[in-house]
Formats: sequence, structure tokens, C-alpha cells
Amino acid sequence: MSLLPSWVESANLPDCPFPLNNLPYGVFSTKDSDPRCGVAIGDRILDVQMAEELGLITLDHGPAFDVPFWNEVMEMGPETWAELRRQLTTLLAQGSEHQTDVEPMLVAQSDAELHMPFLVSEYTDFYAGRHHATNVGTMFRGAENALPPNWLHIPIGYNGRASSVVVSGTEVRRPWGQLKSPDQPLPAFLPCRRFDFELEMGAIVGMPSDGPVTVDEADDMIFGYVLLNDWSARDIQAWEYQPLGPFQAKATATTISPWIVTKAALDPFRVHTPKRDFELLDHLKDTGPMLYDIDLEVTLAPQGQAPTSLTKTNYREMYYSAAQQLAHHTTSGCPMTPGDLLGSGTISGAEKHQRGSMLELSWGGKDPLTLATGEDRSFLQDGDTLTLSGAAKGDGVTIGFGTCTGTVLPALEDPYKR
Amino acid sequence: MSLLPSWVESANLPDCPFPLNNLPYGVFSTKDSDPRCGVAIGDRILDVQMAEELGLITLDHGPAFDVPFWNEVMEMGPETWAELRRQLTTLLAQGSEHQTDVEPMLVAQSDAELHMPFLVSEYTDFYAGRHHATNVGTMFRGAENALPPNWLHIPIGYNGRASSVVVSGTEVRRPWGQLKSPDQPLPAFLPCRRFDFELEMGAIVGMPSDGPVTVDEADDMIFGYVLLNDWSARDIQAWEYQPLGPFQAKATATTISPWIVTKAALDPFRVHTPKRDFELLDHLKDTGPMLYDIDLEVTLAPQGQAPTSLTKTNYREMYYSAAQQLAHHTTSGCPMTPGDLLGSGTISGAEKHQRGSMLELSWGGKDPLTLATGEDRSFLQDGDTLTLSGAAKGDGVTIGFGTCTGTVLPALEDPYKR
Repeated sequence: MSLLPSWVESANLPDCPFPLNNLPYGVFSTKDSDPRCGVAIGDRILDVQMAEELGLITLDHGPAFDVPFWNEVMEMGPETWAELRRQLTTLLAQGSEHQTDVEPMLVAQSDAELHMPFLVSEYTDFYAGRHHATNVGTMFRGAENALPPNWLHIPIGYNGRASSVVVSGTEVRRPWGQLKSPDQPLPAFLPCRRFDFELEMGAIVGMPSDGPVTVDEADDMIFGYVLLNDWSARDIQAWEYQPLGPFQAKATATTISPWIVTKAALDPFRVHTPKRDFELLDHLKDTGPMLYDIDLEVTLAPQGQAPTSLTKTNYREMYYSAAQQLAHHTTSGCPMTPGDLLGSGTISGAEKHQRGSMLELSWGGKDPLTLATGEDRSFLQDGDTLTLSGAAKGDGVTIGFGTCTGTVLPALEDPYKR
Repeated sequence: MSLLPSWVESANLPDCPFPLNNLPYGVFSTKDSDPRCGVAIGDRILDVQMAEELGLITLDHGPAFDVPFWNEVMEMGPETWAELRRQLTTLLAQGSEHQTDVEPMLVAQSDAELHMPFLVSEYTDFYAGRHHATNVGTMFRGAENALPPNWLHIPIGYNGRASSVVVSGTEVRRPWGQLKSPDQPLPAFLPCRRFDFELEMGAIVGMPSDGPVTVDEADDMIFGYVLLNDWSARDIQAWEYQPLGPFQAKATATTISPWIVTKAALDPFRVHTPKRDFELLDHLKDTGPMLYDIDLEVTLAPQGQAPTSLTKTNYREMYYSAAQQLAHHTTSGCPMTPGDLLGSGTISGAEKHQRGSMLELSWGGKDPLTLATGEDRSFLQDGDTLTLSGAAKGDGVTIGFGTCTGTVLPALEDPYKR
């Protein structure tokens, strides 16, 4: 792999997250335009709505960019996904005959506001990082029983709430919820005291299914990936989650990064899943490298202060790929829909500085972190800004995801006051 | 309350499920017409698309019936819901001046096929029947620990899969899944052996929320109710559900009855929730009668044979109302959307013949039922047709739900064969 040069000069700079090799998909607006689909290139965004209107992009299945979300492209299927990428590459490559026509369709990223890149059909969150599951299991059940018996055989997941998925930059209000303190006989309705983040990747399903699909078919169905922060209210979760799993603890918000990085852009960074303790059953078996080597980092900035790096890890730490998760998701015949979002589960590495949540970093609050500002943190405080970032890097090419950020607002004083 | 007479004579017959007092909302097609919105009256369906096109129904917020689902009416809000009911009542009442105009807009129910009455935005399933939770808890954890500690304080629920919700009459394919027999060291991928039904009511959310809502506000947000069968693969569930709850066990299908019975029609049948062991916290407290006195029955017919009544119970058995469930659902700030469907949880009475699932009726398979045909049943067999029915009855008026039915098809021989 090597850098594909573009006539958009900023795309060719070292470490630029959006070279011609990337071409991630988003939705943007400016002070002069309503939200519309765009493609990041260097420090610009190509207005693909305009490009399609003026005939520079033409897709077989009719207009794709008459709506401000990418679901229509997804529904056109993988041949169209490949065709669109070819057309975009041709338009933006160094020496393109279309440069003069395309130049007026570029908007500076600094002038654009980014919106949700797609309509989330349904949202599923997995629990497929071994270090995370081991850390959490050790805290709750002891090291001997850390991993539930099913964990090494199926990617454990639960359905989340699509309506709560928001784009990077959206402020997140600390939730109220029913909690029970260990020292109290009865629960109380209070603002969450243990608000947390979870560092995850999100896989976006681009094709429907009608019956079980194989791991290879599942990989084909994936349209692209985003960074994902699964905001979590640990104290609400502790009280509610038995026996049917997390519910309100995970429903306040889930933040995703604004650019969908396509599977095609990530293809050079495919890696295998880690060594397994048990061979998986045939329908979940690895058939090739379906994880990706993506460096991930999380920083925390207290209100008005400099950020501290909390964790650095990599997506390749996952025990199950998104393709395996999606294959498992369909085993029951569950129909999948374009726009379904699959959270990977929290991505933690083996080391302390590689852990993907405050719960793990502060070991349930027993071992608070000290930030660069000198402050301690066990869980998130009001005003804290969390920022996830990620990039696949190799040989002078960076495939960046941009950032996935959110600031914690204080809980409402009275959540029922109108 | 008394019967409101209609010029549609069949609507005035004793025990007719669809008198003028009911006016439930569905979507139907005939051999001559595509799916469209309709209202059941007696043994007919009023084609409200045609009624609106010809100016007999006019709603302030513009056309509601240019689409074959009821979500647009929901989104118009409670004043429009009341206005529509007034207009329908006027059109169909005995002595209506519109009889001659409306008569050509009636279709015989026997000539119509019924479709999903609304687009399901997201689907949440609760676990709010005390007898059911006690039965299941006793089987799994013993009588002493039957109810989890949180159960009497919050309506426990989990997010289900909206894409799997189907209308009555849809055949349901026995799923495959990962199971682990107690006598085997490792799991296997097999067709489900313990396929089950769950008798539930579904509440349809008609208004959005943006922050926590009170129980009264939640009650206002509910558009109507349907019968709901939450098909459940007990053996898949047993292996997968720890620690994050049911996932593929509940994703094969959930069947709903085709007619949305409005909250207005059910209003005379409001009843209080049962006596509580603990006072609920303020935000979940009962503020009035928000359950309904609805008789429910389930029958099972083996392939080609007569049905046996499995259970008779009543929606009033629930410990939490749909309004309480919806209020709880918003505590975290989780945004609710018109078209969200809330399953009540399995509705079981105190007696054996009032249990709402095979799991309870056969006590986990230890005490099989004997059907009228002489066959035994612990769980569902291929070819079995399950039929839920329900009606609120009082003083010569029946508010019927129609039926919610589905036949179990055998598992695919090879689920991956295309």
C-alpha cells in the first residue's frame, strides 16, 4: 500500500487522516447549505449531493444523495459501494480531468458542521473484548469466574436503543436513574454517580438479511466502521441488569464519530482475531482476517483544561470480529436491516493504560486515576470532555476516523420540571 | 357504558368484537387494492384512505392515510387522535347522514388480508407479570429467590428487535441456535428444542419524548394496544442470557394482532394495578387506573387438529402498567419515538390454567400438558398453531382485539444452504 496522491494538496500531507486512500462518508452543513452527504478529502469535504446533481457522480440505482444520510447508498449494495469509490477516486486523483469542475464542490471542514452520517435502524452492543470482559468479570465475580461459560463460544451481545445514538460533539446530560446503594435497604431515584465511557468501534450493516448468514456473508454485508462511545451509568446498571441485562444504564446516549470509514479503505489493515481457547463452532469460525489494526486513544479534558490521555489500545484486541458478531446476530433468523449499528464491545488491552472504560481504569473506583491537571478521577465528572480517536497507519498512509467527542452536562435539577 | 349503535348492522350483534365503541385501526389489502389503512366495524373494514381522499375524513395536520401504516396519525398527536375518533363515530353511527357515501367504502373482513398496522420504530419487552416472574424465578433459582431484588421496584425490561415483529398469520420458522445441554461439556449449533410462546399485550407509543416523563405523561403518550406473542427459544436463552440478557432467543419473531385497539376504546375498562409490597418511588407511582380489564386466552392446535385452550388470564394481572413501563423507559433520558412497541411481559395468573407460556404450563417440561387430542406437550412442536385472543367485556359491549396467531414451521435442514 502507498499513498494515492490527490490534487487536493492537504490530502497528501504526512499523517493527514483523510488521504485519497480513505474517502470516508459523512453528512455536513454550512451556513449556506442544509445537511447533505459529503466525503472527506484532506481538510476539505466534497459535496457529493452537488456532484451527483451536476452529473459527476452517477450510480446505476438512481440518485443516492437526494437525502442527508447514507442509507440509500447502503441499500444499493456492494457493487454500487465499489462503483462509488471508483468514481470518487477518479474525481479526486492527482491529474484528474475533473479537477476544475470538482473544485467548486469542496467545502473547508472548518466551515462545516457534521451530522449523523446515517439513520440508525437498530443498535446492538456486544461484549466481545476479552480483557474488558475479564476485568469486569473479575471485579464482579472474582478472577476464577471472570468469563461467563458462554463467553468463549459466542459473541455475547444485547440490543441497545437506536434513538439514543448521537453524533460526535453532542453534549451528554448525566442521567437520573434508580440506584441502590449497598448501605441502603431500598433504592432511590438520583442522578447517576458512576457515569462512564466505553471505547468501542461501531460496524454499520449495509445489506439486509433474511435468515442466518455465514461469517463470509456477514463480512460482505458490512458497509463501514465508526468510533463509538457507549456512555454507561454503572450504578444504574448494577441495580437493573439482573436478570435481563442493561437497559436504562445504556440508553442516555451512544456517541459515534461523524465519518463512516469504508471497509474498502480499511482492507489493507485486516488482521486475524487472537488465538482461541476453544475452537469456535463452524458457523462462527474465522475464515480470514476480519479484525483491523486500528490504533485507538481516549483523552479526558476537565472543563476548560488540557486533556489527559487515559488509554491507548487497538481494535485488534477484540476476541470476535464484527463479521462474527453479525453472523451470530442472524442465527435465530433475526432479520438485519441496512443502517443497523453493531458496537464491538469495550476495547481494552492487557495493560492498565490500555483499558477502555473508567470502571476498569479506576478498578471500580478503588484506584482513581490522576489526571495531568492533578485532579483525581474514578468516574466522569460534570464538564469532562471525552474524546476518542482512531487511525489505521501503515507505510506513509493514515486512514483516520476523526474524533468522537462528548462533554458531560450536569444532571437536571428536577428531571420532571417542564 | 352501553353499546353505541351503528348502521353497519353486524356491529350491533351481541359479542361482536368490533362495535362502534371499538373502531380499531389496521392495514388491509384486497385482491383489488394495495395495503391501506382501515378501521374495523362489525364484519367490515372502512377504507379510510378512500374516506380521506373523498373528503369524509379531514384532519388538521394534512393527509394521514396516504401511507399504509398508522404512524402518521400517531405523530399528529392526541388531539388529532380524538378528532379522528369523533369523525369515524359520526360517519358510522346509526342515523348518520353519511351512510350512503360511506357504504361503498366498506370491505368485508373475509375479503381482506391484514398487514402490519404500523412501522415498529423500536421494540422493548418487559418482565412485569408477577406470577410469571415468580414461576420462572422459582424454576431457575428456587422459591426463596424467585423475584430478583429489583423486581418490586422497577419494571424490568430489555430491548428487543423491531425487525422481527410480524403480523398475526405469519408463519414462524423454528430457529437454530447455540445450545449447551447440561450433559455435554461444549455447546452445539442445533435447531431449538424448547420453542415457546409468551402471552403478552403490546402498548404502542404514539408521541415522542425528549427527557424523563411522568406516569401521567406516559399514559397520554400511548396510542393503543395489541395482543403480542413473544416467541421464545428457551434453550438458546438458557445458554446466552448471562450476563447481558436474552438476545437471539427472542429475535426469531414477535407476533402482534393486526388491529390497534385505541386507548379511548379501552377507557371504560381501566383498572388499578395489584396491591404492592413496596411503595414505588414517586416517579413510578400509580396516579390512577392504568391497567385494563382484558380477558385473554391462548389455544394450541396441532397440525390439522382441533385447538385446546391452554390458558385463560387477564391483563389486569400485571404488576406494572404500560404507562409505568414507559415512564421508567425514559428515566435515563432515552428518547422515545412514535411507533415504539412495549411488550408487557408474560401475563400469567395465579392458577396453573392461567399461565402464559409453555415453560410455566409444563413447569420447564417436567409436567407436560395433555391436549384435547390426547397428545402431550412440554414445548411447541412443528405444525402447532398458537392463537392468542383478547377482549374487554362489559354491559353488552365487547372491545375485541381479534386474534394473534402463528404456526410453527420446522427448522431449516441446513440454515446456510442458499
